[in-house]
Amino acid sequence: MKNFDEAPGRYKVRDLNLAEAGRHQIRLAEHEMPGLMALREEYGDSKPLAGARIAGSLHMTVQTAVLIETLTTLGAQVRWASCNIFSTQDEAAAAIAVGPTGTPDNPSGVPVFAWKGETLSEYWDCTEQIMTWRDDHGHLTGPNMILDDGGDATLLVHLGVQYEKDGSVPEPLFPGDAGYNAEKEEIHRVLRASVDKSGNHWTELANNILGVTEETTTGVHRLYALAEKEELLFPAINVNDSVTKSKFDNKYGIRHSLPDGINRATDILIGGKVAFVAGYGDVGKGAAEAFRGQGARVIVSEVDPICALQAAMDGFQVAQLEDVVDQADFFITTTGNFNVIRPEHVLAMKDKAVIGNIGHFDNEIDIAGLAAIEGVTQVEIKPQVHEWTLPSGRSVIVLSEGRLLNLGNATGHPSFVMSNSFANQVIAQIELFTKAPHGEYPTGVYRLPKILDEKVARLHLDALGAKLTQLSPEQAEYIGVPVSGPYKPEHYRY
Amino acid sequence: MKNFDEAPGRYKVRDLNLAEAGRHQIRLAEHEMPGLMALREEYGDSKPLAGARIAGSLHMTVQTAVLIETLTTLGAQVRWASCNIFSTQDEAAAAIAVGPTGTPDNPSGVPVFAWKGETLSEYWDCTEQIMTWRDDHGHLTGPNMILDDGGDATLLVHLGVQYEKDGSVPEPLFPGDAGYNAEKEEIHRVLRASVDKSGNHWTELANNILGVTEETTTGVHRLYALAEKEELLFPAINVNDSVTKSKFDNKYGIRHSLPDGINRATDILIGGKVAFVAGYGDVGKGAAEAFRGQGARVIVSEVDPICALQAAMDGFQVAQLEDVVDQADFFITTTGNFNVIRPEHVLAMKDKAVIGNIGHFDNEIDIAGLAAIEGVTQVEIKPQVHEWTLPSGRSVIVLSEGRLLNLGNATGHPSFVMSNSFANQVIAQIELFTKAPHGEYPTGVYRLPKILDEKVARLHLDALGAKLTQLSPEQAEYIGVPVSGPYKPEHYRY
Amino acid sequence: MKNFDEAPGRYKVRDLNLAEAGRHQIRLAEHEMPGLMALREEYGDSKPLAGARIAGSLHMTVQTAVLIETLTTLGAQVRWASCNIFSTQDEAAAAIAVGPTGTPDNPSGVPVFAWKGETLSEYWDCTEQIMTWRDDHGHLTGPNMILDDGGDATLLVHLGVQYEKDGSVPEPLFPGDAGYNAEKEEIHRVLRASVDKSGNHWTELANNILGVTEETTTGVHRLYALAEKEELLFPAINVNDSVTKSKFDNKYGIRHSLPDGINRATDILIGGKVAFVAGYGDVGKGAAEAFRGQGARVIVSEVDPICALQAAMDGFQVAQLEDVVDQADFFITTTGNFNVIRPEHVLAMKDKAVIGNIGHFDNEIDIAGLAAIEGVTQVEIKPQVHEWTLPSGRSVIVLSEGRLLNLGNATGHPSFVMSNSFANQVIAQIELFTKAPHGEYPTGVYRLPKILDEKVARLHLDALGAKLTQLSPEQAEYIGVPVSGPYKPEHYRY
Amino acid sequence: MKNFDEAPGRYKVRDLNLAEAGRHQIRLAEHEMPGLMALREEYGDSKPLAGARIAGSLHMTVQTAVLIETLTTLGAQVRWASCNIFSTQDEAAAAIAVGPTGTPDNPSGVPVFAWKGETLSEYWDCTEQIMTWRDDHGHLTGPNMILDDGGDATLLVHLGVQYEKDGSVPEPLFPGDAGYNAEKEEIHRVLRASVDKSGNHWTELANNILGVTEETTTGVHRLYALAEKEELLFPAINVNDSVTKSKFDNKYGIRHSLPDGINRATDILIGGKVAFVAGYGDVGKGAAEAFRGQGARVIVSEVDPICALQAAMDGFQVAQLEDVVDQADFFITTTGNFNVIRPEHVLAMKDKAVIGNIGHFDNEIDIAGLAAIEGVTQVEIKPQVHEWTLPSGRSVIVLSEGRLLNLGNATGHPSFVMSNSFANQVIAQIELFTKAPHGEYPTGVYRLPKILDEKVARLHLDALGAKLTQLSPEQAEYIGVPVSGPYKPEHYRY
Repeated sequence: MKNFDEAPGRYKVRDLNLAEAGRHQIRLAEHEMPGLMALREEYGDSKPLAGARIAGSLHMTVQTAVLIETLTTLGAQVRWASCNIFSTQDEAAAAIAVGPTGTPDNPSGVPVFAWKGETLSEYWDCTEQIMTWRDDHGHLTGPNMILDDGGDATLLVHLGVQYEKDGSVPEPLFPGDAGYNAEKEEIHRVLRASVDKSGNHWTELANNILGVTEETTTGVHRLYALAEKEELLFPAINVNDSVTKSKFDNKYGIRHSLPDGINRATDILIGGKVAFVAGYGDVGKGAAEAFRGQGARVIVSEVDPICALQAAMDGFQVAQLEDVVDQADFFITTTGNFNVIRPEHVLAMKDKAVIGNIGHFDNEIDIAGLAAIEGVTQVEIKPQVHEWTLPSGRSVIVLSEGRLLNLGNATGHPSFVMSNSFANQVIAQIELFTKAPHGEYPTGVYRLPKILDEKVARLHLDALGAKLTQLSPEQAEYIGVPVSGPYKPEHYRY
Repeated sequence: MKNFDEAPGRYKVRDLNLAEAGRHQIRLAEHEMPGLMALREEYGDSKPLAGARIAGSLHMTVQTAVLIETLTTLGAQVRWASCNIFSTQDEAAAAIAVGPTGTPDNPSGVPVFAWKGETLSEYWDCTEQIMTWRDDHGHLTGPNMILDDGGDATLLVHLGVQYEKDGSVPEPLFPGDAGYNAEKEEIHRVLRASVDKSGNHWTELANNILGVTEETTTGVHRLYALAEKEELLFPAINVNDSVTKSKFDNKYGIRHSLPDGINRATDILIGGKVAFVAGYGDVGKGAAEAFRGQGARVIVSEVDPICALQAAMDGFQVAQLEDVVDQADFFITTTGNFNVIRPEHVLAMKDKAVIGNIGHFDNEIDIAGLAAIEGVTQVEIKPQVHEWTLPSGRSVIVLSEGRLLNLGNATGHPSFVMSNSFANQVIAQIELFTKAPHGEYPTGVYRLPKILDEKVARLHLDALGAKLTQLSPEQAEYIGVPVSGPYKPEHYRY
Repeated sequence: MKNFDEAPGRYKVRDLNLAEAGRHQIRLAEHEMPGLMALREEYGDSKPLAGARIAGSLHMTVQTAVLIETLTTLGAQVRWASCNIFSTQDEAAAAIAVGPTGTPDNPSGVPVFAWKGETLSEYWDCTEQIMTWRDDHGHLTGPNMILDDGGDATLLVHLGVQYEKDGSVPEPLFPGDAGYNAEKEEIHRVLRASVDKSGNHWTELANNILGVTEETTTGVHRLYALAEKEELLFPAINVNDSVTKSKFDNKYGIRHSLPDGINRATDILIGGKVAFVAGYGDVGKGAAEAFRGQGARVIVSEVDPICALQAAMDGFQVAQLEDVVDQADFFITTTGNFNVIRPEHVLAMKDKAVIGNIGHFDNEIDIAGLAAIEGVTQVEIKPQVHEWTLPSGRSVIVLSEGRLLNLGNATGHPSFVMSNSFANQVIAQIELFTKAPHGEYPTGVYRLPKILDEKVARLHLDALGAKLTQLSPEQAEYIGVPVSGPYKPEHYRY
Repeated sequence: MKNFDEAPGRYKVRDLNLAEAGRHQIRLAEHEMPGLMALREEYGDSKPLAGARIAGSLHMTVQTAVLIETLTTLGAQVRWASCNIFSTQDEAAAAIAVGPTGTPDNPSGVPVFAWKGETLSEYWDCTEQIMTWRDDHGHLTGPNMILDDGGDATLLVHLGVQYEKDGSVPEPLFPGDAGYNAEKEEIHRVLRASVDKSGNHWTELANNILGVTEETTTGVHRLYALAEKEELLFPAINVNDSVTKSKFDNKYGIRHSLPDGINRATDILIGGKVAFVAGYGDVGKGAAEAFRGQGARVIVSEVDPICALQAAMDGFQVAQLEDVVDQADFFITTTGNFNVIRPEHVLAMKDKAVIGNIGHFDNEIDIAGLAAIEGVTQVEIKPQVHEWTLPSGRSVIVLSEGRLLNLGNATGHPSFVMSNSFANQVIAQIELFTKAPHGEYPTGVYRLPKILDEKVARLHLDALGAKLTQLSPEQAEYIGVPVSGPYKPEHYRY
């Protein structure tokens, strides 16, 4: 394990410049994250998270740094890992470890277990580290809150408890064995030590956890699945489905970061070109709007007739990929499904077509299938940009090897967008930490109450110069809502 | 009572041209209502509504004519009234009464009790008429289904039942009496006859009703209120909140009919002007997009911070009316609230500012308050367009006296949009009529299952040349949905 | 000849209501024509057109009424005819004839020779009437200025002079004769009387004319052709090619009036549909933007590769009509060419496709060819809207019989747009009337100096709340322009 | 002098990877430059530039590499320098020097005198080098064509000739001397050697030059100024004002590269923000569209009332900077003027406002004035991104130190846009080289004939899938143009 001390668990930051550069970027990002800064203002004195020990597993970026320092300003203790082996911005990690008032030699920050380019093995070691809280006497206390993105931290705890119930961790498998999965083996390796040692390490740890707040669709799916099987161990708040998360992060974040990623990767003119967008959910809506805003002609594919009708009514051609595959210059997947762009499609594309994914996993584009085409060759144009030459002599440009291109080819969502998502996280942490002990959140998966969703929006209006209108008491009564909200029924779609 | 025979209950159509003109328009509208035509195709043989006696209360327009003939094609018997004293298109009513194969002298159509410009008294008589079904022996049977828009037909039945329970209808009040309400008196007048006569006329009638399908927000509110008080007498389907109704009718319908109404009313250039839109719900979103599409600069006001943030992210200025009242050329209300534009605002507007409402009731603009300004005068420029001259000498143009300007100054939503709404109505009628007898819809208020919402969308794709993509079984399993839908969780926001 | 007295040449207005209604509309239009009102303000006292006798031939609409009263406010005497047999708005004509301070019985207005629905014969009689000025002694003086739209007034004078040179007007032809043209015969009939009578009536009249200002492309073409053949009799200003005319009238005027015309004609939803626009000049650009603004998908055809490239870069599909004729729902011609949409295209269109022209003449759509298809039938849905049923059983909707649909199905360009065009007209009249006598405009065709074009723009900014930035003397020098303009080289394209 | 050999004048490329990387990028760029590739196809065999010796002074980028190899494919010999000390992409220079078929050790390419980060002294030495052609006997022949961008190569020749006429180069001045200008001193230093040595070196060289083709506004201004003073020595073609250059490069190029530059520099969300754009010429139009396409609200300032009116009609607020300086988040200059954003403006901006220039020179923003504010401090966030902290404690972000941000913070215009500009260059070179010797281009400044402008557009349509419509002979005659163009009068504005 590299880059952090075992004992204090601190990011080993000896490079003054790295931490300083990170601090600089954090300062600029704070200006773009008015939601988090307003929460610091509101709760900085009352410190509702005092006593909270938050184990965080979420991309260790500059924006996350502002989140972390918001949590600590609200009184929390925090330990942090990234939820992706590539997504850490080292300068942000360094600055967080050093802390706003510390120095590289005398850090006062937060234990950070993350660096850009971890191995799978390192990744799961890091994830375990965020669980190893000890009190002043060196006794393991563990976290009492989890802040998760994708559910890996939550998974580790649940598997640990399960294996302790089972009495043991499954025997190791090796490459070639049936059912072998490299990542699962790493998880087992990490768990084996603790499960074997104590027998109730994870069970005790889980008992101390008041709840988890989860950032994304994937993690949320896992939580609902656990809840359905009645295996969920503590309450969870689904932050992903707050309006101010899903409608903003997905639509407006993508509108920004999709063309940014394409431009940095290819420098190819978007205007006048034909862009194929697979999927017209919130991500697809943002993608289509971004392409149109640059003067491209957009063709959308959809499986859901309602979203398809929306695409048509918004002025986009709706077609099957097969029918237009030879017309488009850009192919972008936003579906969250798999094998959406397949080798037979790629073989029919125009020379130098650009292919990228901004949906979820890298299997939206069947990269493996592409690699399996006989005679195909691949060359790196620059990092995260590969030219695949097909047997026909034509070639296509694949971005980020099929992984999220806005993260791989650009810098992901901008701070302002993340301020919405992360303000939901902070509010959700406060909700669970302050109310779960009083039984207000029995084990289950919850969405944030609409009034808090509205609060997150409210915190971002000033920064945009948007001035809200106030309902009079008579008007509020007329439409049957409180003057201060919530203003809409639960099923309202925005 | 004029214009229809008491005995056969038929619209008295002696004007051949009127019915012919209506038939012509119906034929053209059918082409723009692919959802309804597809339902005729699908269910024309099996006739799932055979045996249904539908009492319809909904604007008697050309589009409604296509709806009515769809219901009869599916086997239903129908009686119809309009739900608004002004909204009947007489040629549509005439054509429906004559029927597709009848003649004015030998009509074969549907009993229609509606004409443009009814009195309040006539309106409630007409509403009562749609309830007066008789069997071959002349015995009153009443309807077994209601199709409602705004809830007046449902209201009549519920009040009738209540007064029969009470034993009598309240004594008449007269103008000047405390609590006097002209409309309520008309309702009482109509009910008094039947309640007094039989004592259980409405109760029996209500017992025969399998359910109601309701078109709009207002009617839906009434239904939920009845359900909450446990006074609802039969199941209801809330058609209004189908995605293919609320998101399409409200957003895309308004995008079309708002500029249409303004243009027909004023012939004033929209481009380059400043348009103030109160509210950024679905209606406001459609309005803002329409103005932008014509080159106007849009300023939005909102009370809901989430919608306000959406407006800002969509590139619109968000401001309070007070702060921009002297800048805008057009003022449009879309809120569903009241007293949104008030006299103090109007007094501060630019000379010749145009004011209109496309939200809900005519009290969104405080017309009464405007009329009460000392020294204000009003002149009709043309029907539904009035110039109000203020004491300052400046004047403003008020559209449709503050009522819905797309109906008053243009022809409302186009057929294609209504095809979505009405396909939901037909499907909801089938649902209730075929399933309520088997206990599948205990008394309560329901939304259509998402799979049927998706079906409505599906029926409209071909007409737009939109081609849907099919999920493979593997892909469907991957995201955990059936291959044929529904594709989204209930809380999905589109 | 009807509707005006021969002697005073006044529009016979006995219908008080008509003139009053017109006056009302004129008052509202003045508010939307800030360019003309500013010229009244600037020149109302100095009266630079005192002594001008302007013969005007231009659509006699409400907007033209504001133009006429601006000319008279600047000191001119005016006689007016329309330049199109259908385009007169009778209430505007009546109001102008009555005059702002006159009464129907005691009119004080301007001699107007125009009514809606003239015959060809009446049309040319009216055109001759605007030339018959007489002094107090009854001697014919004729006009000293022409304000023309399409060049008919100018044509009459030039033909008169030519025939006087020739010694006679050509012998009449009759239907069936080779070379027979109904309109030409009417012109000859009108000229024959005067040419035969005096022999130098038109020659003297032409000698008195200082110049003509011409509104449109067609008229401008005629003028350049005359100048090239050295047959032009007096200087001409090409108003059509002022930026504030061509770029505004064509692009922004069409953006407004195209959807207005379609909506009033068909009530068909535009959103989600496919619109084919033939031509991507200024008119096509406005049309495409209007369709996109309503959520339609636009396909453009072009013969000019530069305009085609612009269309592509603006995000529109560029295709040949043949290749997409079965996809579009709307077909709009904007080319100024002929036979753009031909019978073979119409036969291949979707059922109920809508066809309209907003370019120039009614031959852009080959209506004659359409009528010649064997088995085709036609029925009027409402005025200016016809359904043509094809042998296949499919039908198409043709707007305004192929004539300009924004005029035929709606009310043409809105006042604000015409204020730009007409302010150019007024300024051009002042230029010629005040400078031509001093030899500043030798016979030839001129465009307005850019500084005056800029002036017209300047007059319209306040009304839109647009605030201009001032160049400092140093900045003006830096880019080599005067502080007060003109700011651009002649070839600048805007 | 570094990086190239004196003798062969070749870029010293010993770094195989550099040249290979450049070749790779050239290959991809060729795909995006269909105009140049089509010219290779068309003229590759006939080699119309055989015998041409082209001295090129234009940014030595990947796109320019494709231009250079197009010129050599058409038969020309070429020597190249950059026209900006920072703009060379070293890998492109290396690849061009090596040549498509050469190797670093055995280069077969073109003499390139350019590298990223030249000193001013090196820059003018490089510019002189492109003039030093020698025949096989070592006799100086010089170029017979110049391809210029900004006019530095042309300036050098003209100054050389003038000083030879004067008999000497002005005496050197030194920093502090009145009239001292560092760049002028470098030019004089370069000229002094040759002028003093031969007395007619530049005069003979100029006599051999058939003409120059000039890329940009600045160079064109210089040429018109020389022509006006009758000092122009050879004919010039103004490539800048081809429609396919000015309307495409300026509008569509900026639409792409402005947000690209902002995103790479700042990662700040554009959506929902307020962007101030100074100037609404073609560059401003592209900038405003780009911001709107990302969901920003745009405020435009203009001095030209026509452009201001266009901005308003396009839906943008038009205001003076002073009135909105405290509202905007982004400030972008596009004017081509100077001191547009001044210290008093910057002092009034919001905290963390972003300021950038995409117009022309770095004095559009008064950086010197900003630096002179007492107490102001500046820190580099990253290369080309500086945070200036003001005495108020607020800070602003300045991009590229006020120089063109699309070049400084991103990679300039994409290849497809440059393919338009450069196709004009190649065609202009052919025009002058083949026709000037026959007297078809007497000394003066010309624009390319419209038919060639149309040709350039035509060459780019296929790549966008745009299919042109053909005029029939009858249609062409009807509108009075040749079937194959040109299609528009000279003053047409597109």
